[in-house]
Amino acid sequence: MASTQRVLIAIIGVGGVGKCFLGQLQALAARRSAPQLDLFYISTSKKAIYNDDYSSIKIEDAAEVLAKSSKTPPPTEKLVEYLSSAPARVVLVDNTSSQDVAESYPLFLRRGVNIITPNKKAFSGSYDLWRDIFGAVATSGAKVFHESSVGAGLPVISTLKDLVETGDQVKRIEGVFSGTMSFLFNSFAPTEGSGGKWSDEVRKAKELGYTEPDPRDDLNGLDVARKLTILARLAGLEVASPTSFPVQSLIPKELESCESGQEFLDKLHHFDDQMEKTKKEAEAEGKVIRFVGSIDIPTKTVKVGLEKFDRGHPISSLKGSDNIISFYTERYGNNPLIIQGAGAGGEVTAMGVTSDLLKVLA
Amino acid sequence: MASTQRVLIAIIGVGGVGKCFLGQLQALAARRSAPQLDLFYISTSKKAIYNDDYSSIKIEDAAEVLAKSSKTPPPTEKLVEYLSSAPARVVLVDNTSSQDVAESYPLFLRRGVNIITPNKKAFSGSYDLWRDIFGAVATSGAKVFHESSVGAGLPVISTLKDLVETGDQVKRIEGVFSGTMSFLFNSFAPTEGSGGKWSDEVRKAKELGYTEPDPRDDLNGLDVARKLTILARLAGLEVASPTSFPVQSLIPKELESCESGQEFLDKLHHFDDQMEKTKKEAEAEGKVIRFVGSIDIPTKTVKVGLEKFDRGHPISSLKGSDNIISFYTERYGNNPLIIQGAGAGGEVTAMGVTSDLLKVLA
Repeated sequence: MASTQRVLIAIIGVGGVGKCFLGQLQALAARRSAPQLDLFYISTSKKAIYNDDYSSIKIEDAAEVLAKSSKTPPPTEKLVEYLSSAPARVVLVDNTSSQDVAESYPLFLRRGVNIITPNKKAFSGSYDLWRDIFGAVATSGAKVFHESSVGAGLPVISTLKDLVETGDQVKRIEGVFSGTMSFLFNSFAPTEGSGGKWSDEVRKAKELGYTEPDPRDDLNGLDVARKLTILARLAGLEVASPTSFPVQSLIPKELESCESGQEFLDKLHHFDDQMEKTKKEAEAEGKVIRFVGSIDIPTKTVKVGLEKFDRGHPISSLKGSDNIISFYTERYGNNPLIIQGAGAGGEVTAMGVTSDLLKVLA
Repeated sequence: MASTQRVLIAIIGVGGVGKCFLGQLQALAARRSAPQLDLFYISTSKKAIYNDDYSSIKIEDAAEVLAKSSKTPPPTEKLVEYLSSAPARVVLVDNTSSQDVAESYPLFLRRGVNIITPNKKAFSGSYDLWRDIFGAVATSGAKVFHESSVGAGLPVISTLKDLVETGDQVKRIEGVFSGTMSFLFNSFAPTEGSGGKWSDEVRKAKELGYTEPDPRDDLNGLDVARKLTILARLAGLEVASPTSFPVQSLIPKELESCESGQEFLDKLHHFDDQMEKTKKEAEAEGKVIRFVGSIDIPTKTVKVGLEKFDRGHPISSLKGSDNIISFYTERYGNNPLIIQGAGAGGEVTAMGVTSDLLKVLA
């Protein structure tokens, strides 16, 4: 029989976010007496630690023990069986960005296993998978939370859900959803001063660790498109996929066939003139360019790409690699509800995961 | 035996926020099948509707039926007895700003009655009352939510709680916490142009409905001090009361003895020079003045009053009567987590109440 005095945590993924989450979980488990939080399963794609009797695993050295484990993770069906047969409530925390793990969520949810994740794939993939996930939630009562899938620890998903569920009419959502794009355009087209060459800024962002290992994975706009897909669906639009609406890629056509990120970076300066021209056109109107995503609910329009903003606009005056998300709604009128701050990074992403866990415990 | 399939709602207060909440509750109850939401008690300070058998009251015309009711509300002990003996989970929604109702929360909470309220009084009064409330919560397991007590429907309280409970170190909280003060200073000391005379701006704000009936109730700074008290306590500071730290009043000493708001408004222009001087001093530094509250956690400093900000600062470029709240934390580093938008008004305040109700239902 499931005890309400114990909550069992299973974790998949021990990368940057996963390691930060383990630290936060350890602190949380030490602070809380009821319900007691017990880690009982942890795995990467290759290794796992778990015991047939569901006994708990020490959180503080779980990552090191896992690295030395000779056990491999069970196949999905076996894992579903194992987790759903546990003697208490189970929360599966997916700290990967794996498509395969994402596609297995309905199997877990149908069997009552709660899911928390920063992984965007499940909620921004096919609309069938979305329906499967929330169908499973509706029948089993299991919960799924994914605050960190948009804006990391910023309260973006919870705020949008609150607006919708309390009956406000969300009209438009607009913002800068990528820390990488934020950093690039705040440097390339600052509100004061002139900024550097586009290819230099991209190189600098990569050196400072603000981009993916291959910067094309940021510049193609897909990351932003995935986040927009999630928000649009929560706002009630049946968006088919993150490629079903216009997404502007900042990878020049001629460089799409580059064989490596390095080759791309080496050749990017040949295309600096294009970005410079776009920047100058905006400047001539007293504006700056920013890479934004927007969702217009009445017209069901979702798009991602470069847009011009007045220098005084909150989107223009963003700092560093911050995200900004504006919700225009019936209740909030002309001045949107705005949420702003770091939208990437291990600790703040893990914080979104931990705050979701607090919701399951509440 | 308490049923989990039904949640019983009791409401005190049917003013501006109360009416909006009734509308939102009606829509929510119509949309949700499980748990079923039933209104079974509603009162003002003079009238009440309720039935001994806890049968439900139609939400759509509750306000009108209440206005015609000849029943008076029971004394507090009787109400505690009545609510805590109900055959399902009870949520008491206090939509008043009454000190008396606020002081009775521990009685309800100890008996398992959950409380949701936008009323600041309970959380910004004496520290003994705060301890009583959260002591009752800890022993009975009843919940108390008060999102709308700061920033109305903006997710301010929930975000601060998430930061604290997930283990972030909150260092500083700063912002514009009063819609009235926001409107006054955005007009009086705009970032572009010169703004009007102080007394004219106060008069205009009153005419547009942005102030309390007596504008001194905004200008004394107590409303902001109450909100700061709540946030500081949630961040871990044992603030004794909203008068235990420096609060700058914008009521000139000479006008403190005015017998009415009207007399105050009629005489205020004699003191325009003082405010004009403060504004000009800021302008000479290229800055604007704003009425802000701040909490510095390491030094345990809480204060409320006028401060100067660069024109490009997010606090300076606020619009209309918006609030802005910045959280500086260990995880978020130099760029704070910012929440901005309307922080007053019936619908957005009721939205915070309704979103708290969703948390109780989750």
